[in-house]
Amino acid sequence: MSAYRFLLSAFTLLLPLASSPASAYDPSPLQDFCVVFVNGKFCKDPKLAAANDFSFSGLNIPRSTANRVGSNVTLLNADQIPGLNTMGISMARIDYAPNGGLNPPHTHPRATEILLVLEGTLAVGFVTSNPDNRLITKVLYPGDVFVFPIGLIHFQVNIGQASAVAVAGLSSQNPGAITIANAVFGSNPPINPDVLAKAFQLDKNIVYYLQKQFGGSVGQGPWDDMP
Amino acid sequence: MSAYRFLLSAFTLLLPLASSPASAYDPSPLQDFCVVFVNGKFCKDPKLAAANDFSFSGLNIPRSTANRVGSNVTLLNADQIPGLNTMGISMARIDYAPNGGLNPPHTHPRATEILLVLEGTLAVGFVTSNPDNRLITKVLYPGDVFVFPIGLIHFQVNIGQASAVAVAGLSSQNPGAITIANAVFGSNPPINPDVLAKAFQLDKNIVYYLQKQFGGSVGQGPWDDMP
Amino acid sequence: MSAYRFLLSAFTLLLPLASSPASAYDPSPLQDFCVVFVNGKFCKDPKLAAANDFSFSGLNIPRSTANRVGSNVTLLNADQIPGLNTMGISMARIDYAPNGGLNPPHTHPRATEILLVLEGTLAVGFVTSNPDNRLITKVLYPGDVFVFPIGLIHFQVNIGQASAVAVAGLSSQNPGAITIANAVFGSNPPINPDVLAKAFQLDKNIVYYLQKQFGGSVGQGPWDDMP
Amino acid sequence: MSAYRFLLSAFTLLLPLASSPASAYDPSPLQDFCVVFVNGKFCKDPKLAAANDFSFSGLNIPRSTANRVGSNVTLLNADQIPGLNTMGISMARIDYAPNGGLNPPHTHPRATEILLVLEGTLAVGFVTSNPDNRLITKVLYPGDVFVFPIGLIHFQVNIGQASAVAVAGLSSQNPGAITIANAVFGSNPPINPDVLAKAFQLDKNIVYYLQKQFGGSVGQGPWDDMP
Amino acid sequence: MSAYRFLLSAFTLLLPLASSPASAYDPSPLQDFCVVFVNGKFCKDPKLAAANDFSFSGLNIPRSTANRVGSNVTLLNADQIPGLNTMGISMARIDYAPNGGLNPPHTHPRATEILLVLEGTLAVGFVTSNPDNRLITKVLYPGDVFVFPIGLIHFQVNIGQASAVAVAGLSSQNPGAITIANAVFGSNPPINPDVLAKAFQLDKNIVYYLQKQFGGSVGQGPWDDMP
Amino acid sequence: MSAYRFLLSAFTLLLPLASSPASAYDPSPLQDFCVVFVNGKFCKDPKLAAANDFSFSGLNIPRSTANRVGSNVTLLNADQIPGLNTMGISMARIDYAPNGGLNPPHTHPRATEILLVLEGTLAVGFVTSNPDNRLITKVLYPGDVFVFPIGLIHFQVNIGQASAVAVAGLSSQNPGAITIANAVFGSNPPINPDVLAKAFQLDKNIVYYLQKQFGGSVGQGPWDDMP
Repeated sequence: MSAYRFLLSAFTLLLPLASSPASAYDPSPLQDFCVVFVNGKFCKDPKLAAANDFSFSGLNIPRSTANRVGSNVTLLNADQIPGLNTMGISMARIDYAPNGGLNPPHTHPRATEILLVLEGTLAVGFVTSNPDNRLITKVLYPGDVFVFPIGLIHFQVNIGQASAVAVAGLSSQNPGAITIANAVFGSNPPINPDVLAKAFQLDKNIVYYLQKQFGGSVGQGPWDDMP
Repeated sequence: MSAYRFLLSAFTLLLPLASSPASAYDPSPLQDFCVVFVNGKFCKDPKLAAANDFSFSGLNIPRSTANRVGSNVTLLNADQIPGLNTMGISMARIDYAPNGGLNPPHTHPRATEILLVLEGTLAVGFVTSNPDNRLITKVLYPGDVFVFPIGLIHFQVNIGQASAVAVAGLSSQNPGAITIANAVFGSNPPINPDVLAKAFQLDKNIVYYLQKQFGGSVGQGPWDDMP
Repeated sequence: MSAYRFLLSAFTLLLPLASSPASAYDPSPLQDFCVVFVNGKFCKDPKLAAANDFSFSGLNIPRSTANRVGSNVTLLNADQIPGLNTMGISMARIDYAPNGGLNPPHTHPRATEILLVLEGTLAVGFVTSNPDNRLITKVLYPGDVFVFPIGLIHFQVNIGQASAVAVAGLSSQNPGAITIANAVFGSNPPINPDVLAKAFQLDKNIVYYLQKQFGGSVGQGPWDDMP
Repeated sequence: MSAYRFLLSAFTLLLPLASSPASAYDPSPLQDFCVVFVNGKFCKDPKLAAANDFSFSGLNIPRSTANRVGSNVTLLNADQIPGLNTMGISMARIDYAPNGGLNPPHTHPRATEILLVLEGTLAVGFVTSNPDNRLITKVLYPGDVFVFPIGLIHFQVNIGQASAVAVAGLSSQNPGAITIANAVFGSNPPINPDVLAKAFQLDKNIVYYLQKQFGGSVGQGPWDDMP
Repeated sequence: MSAYRFLLSAFTLLLPLASSPASAYDPSPLQDFCVVFVNGKFCKDPKLAAANDFSFSGLNIPRSTANRVGSNVTLLNADQIPGLNTMGISMARIDYAPNGGLNPPHTHPRATEILLVLEGTLAVGFVTSNPDNRLITKVLYPGDVFVFPIGLIHFQVNIGQASAVAVAGLSSQNPGAITIANAVFGSNPPINPDVLAKAFQLDKNIVYYLQKQFGGSVGQGPWDDMP
Repeated sequence: MSAYRFLLSAFTLLLPLASSPASAYDPSPLQDFCVVFVNGKFCKDPKLAAANDFSFSGLNIPRSTANRVGSNVTLLNADQIPGLNTMGISMARIDYAPNGGLNPPHTHPRATEILLVLEGTLAVGFVTSNPDNRLITKVLYPGDVFVFPIGLIHFQVNIGQASAVAVAGLSSQNPGAITIANAVFGSNPPINPDVLAKAFQLDKNIVYYLQKQFGGSVGQGPWDDMP
């Protein structure tokens, strides 16, 4: 019986992973829905699925923006709402501090985002891929909607003097996010500073400084034999 | 030159269709984006794509709910925002009249919907497929989120005494909608009343009545040789 | 060992679900085939897969149509033929009673259907989505083929005086079916009668009557605070 | 105007191709349906789509099997039924001559096939991929169903003394077919006989003989410098 | 505990299968990556994923071509590099013996191949599907690249007097391969010789001979009642 | 006729776009292949497709690495090899200068990359998405293979004293590339320096400096009303 317990528990830990190989670029389901279970089964018995598996409460509550960039993303993906599994969509609320609250440049590797401004004034933009790297940008007011195509670097910044709030739909049950500055300068272990200095045309001391700022350790990283 | 004009004009009329065969269950793009053009080209030159191709204004403006069911859906799909083409997502605002404003039972043949209540109190539900036909239902308040899985019959009704507003993300650039009552009783030409009487266990006179209500013509429809 | 048994048995019960999260809109396989196993494994060892995993017998046997609507659908999906798993197709036989045997209006949320009439005379149709709700309809004779696009409401009715039989291919290993009348008036728990009365423009007493007919319980359903 | 005519005509010739790049492994549609037009437009105006775009007549008529292999495949794909475009399914009737009528070993590069025997006795089989190359085989009688997984080599042979007939669903609007013997020994231009002799362990004279039998020209083919 | 061991071991054996139903035509991932684990879990904890899960060494080492056809394919799919799981790509090195080393006619049921010649001179070709069966062929030298579309029969032969080497990308994490001659004449159990004689227009004795050559048993196979 | 010419020419210009809406996340084809034409047709007549549509020469020729980062990527996508259209794969050669030649941190929004080192010693790595931002890194030698999952930031740097060369397969006919530093600091028009200063924790003067280095104009960009 302890074997059974062990196994269940192993499954439990792995469950967020277990659903992973089963999914694709957010395919639609092969059944009405497939609610991920919480104790080691792959799919909740559909007869046991309940309204709570498809819902979430409290997205109207403002989130704190008391952080370095002055923004806060509350993402509802298939981890928060199990019924989103296989459904190819998720939702987010984004809060922006007044006077420059910034959702810094980032990408969603698995989703396009459609954003609706509920309150405040946002300047938003995305940059097209190589070689043009065009910035498509616009100032948005409440009721304005903007699309950030999948995989492209984009940002929103509150250029108003009051708090701003937006809600977004994302075309994946697990869009993922890569905040550029953090991934580049704050990775763990750090990227070799020579690589970053050359890529960003920065003095190596500035790279060291940035790596410290972004909380990663500083130094040569796992290989230090760069000539 | 008139030939050219004719052709362009033929293209223009067909453009909403032209993009259709090219798409699938909302595949992600093969390029950063593919903005549908308005004068007969298949794709706008990416260098000419502008912020307006990715945006829409005015989703904060309440829509009239002065209609029979007391609701109004404002859908932003790839027709309204060309930049949504190939992006697999769209957005909607739904207004509900006080005291029973109803977004009546319908399906989206090509999308799952994730709905966020902005104002008001909504009772919502969806029905699972055969043979169980379970109703999954919940009362939602501002800040509550609910998921309606792709293809399933669902509805929302305002059970509060004030107007209600919701915003929804849908997992397709063109989700489609089939309002059950209208498709069944208001099709054009009408479905043979014998079929509807038998399917819905209704007296044929009630079927006649309903077909009149839903604005379709009444009668036998295109074939009347049902025994 | 009893733990082992328990676990296997847990898996067995969940197996129809286990294959679910792994699938999408009927993707083609990542291997030659993936036969679902019956005792708790996810995939039968390909070396053990046998012809019976890919076959089914008896689709030539007429099914009883002695029921309210006078039709009977025999669906062969991945539950009946394990080898259909990941293959994106299934098959059905449909029997229709003489003089009006009806396969009532329904949708397949996950499949297009291509139907071939083997015997009898069928009037068939499907209704396009909003806002047009056009009925595309035709009378079919033996050897006639008709396509019902994915997600659209469709039906077939036997307008001949003999039994009719059709065979259909469906573009999913698990097409699903939603019989409109049953899902709307026979859900469990029932949809609030006020919702149905308003949606279908029916007197509430008729709604009560219909809910009784379709075997669901009658009443206010899970929430009864509709104003 | 002649320019216009020329162009239309160019489109007409290219139409079977025009729809091609627009499609994928039979994605489901982004609209209710997308009927391919016959005079150079990409999509028929949905309002003009008619029942005939979704139907075909005469699949009940026996086809001649008076050919070398004694079988005849009548495929209904999106070329025969325009409404199948983007729908991910097609249908075929197969006639087999008595006493050995053979649908010879072939693959469908883009579809799984589910086959139903209507009349006669068929021995069928498919071979799994490398390295096992297992033959999964079975004798089928009327009412028996068998699945041939996508891309695998398969065949059916009439082992009865009467004609046989089968109907099949295929999981693509354009499954494609590659008859192995014809593609290998009857290609145009021919595959270099040295390649075939080595691959099939055949005497080169037998390769010459086979290439003659399969109607291809014989000889060295486009390059003849094989050492 | 022995139950636990049994189960783990059952999982271990089934793991190559376990990942199968979860995948499709090489969908992109729903997470950064999903490394298949080696002891019965479905997905390695992403925090435990390491560089070795994404790498392979030794593709520069020539492989022996001392076999009947004079070629050797080294495929790196998701079995060799677990990090390829859900990534939709794999890689192969192919060695060809001098003077006719042949990668014999075969198909990849799940992938297109793009091949780069590193050393030597290869004549390559593929055959289009029915009814044209055109051979598209070309002689390739180092630095030349050629594409073999998914599912089509193709081959490469070394027409130079030195060894040849190529490297290929394949559009699937598990492309599969079906060597035509082996699948047709060397299946296990064998295909009925009457079927092969008729399909290939070969004398039955030659079929017997070939079946012996390809190592399959010879004879009537599982059914021998072909008239 | 001039109208015809105009139109053809319009098509010609748009062709690289024309194929776009038709494609998805690199779906496999609905036909053997779909070669994009060069004079305004959507698909080359398959009977006219020739070997050159599927091939490319000269990938063995070293490319110049005399540029700021000391690397050079030669990508063969569906623009270079028309036969790659709908095939879901492409190939690249990458040259690295001795002593630090760098393929700087970038993403492919539409492809996973599998890279094979042909010559030299590369240190490579990718960073996982938020919140972990783990760096998975390894030193590669000739014959070593490494996988960069779709959408993640990755790089390769030559840490040897000789030139290095790698060849890569990418899981898309048009993978796209976003060089992080260029997209962020060299976009056109530039991203507002306040946004970049805050996101990267850089002094604004350094941002100005970087924007100048990356060749973009410097200044406030399209909106300058950031508080």
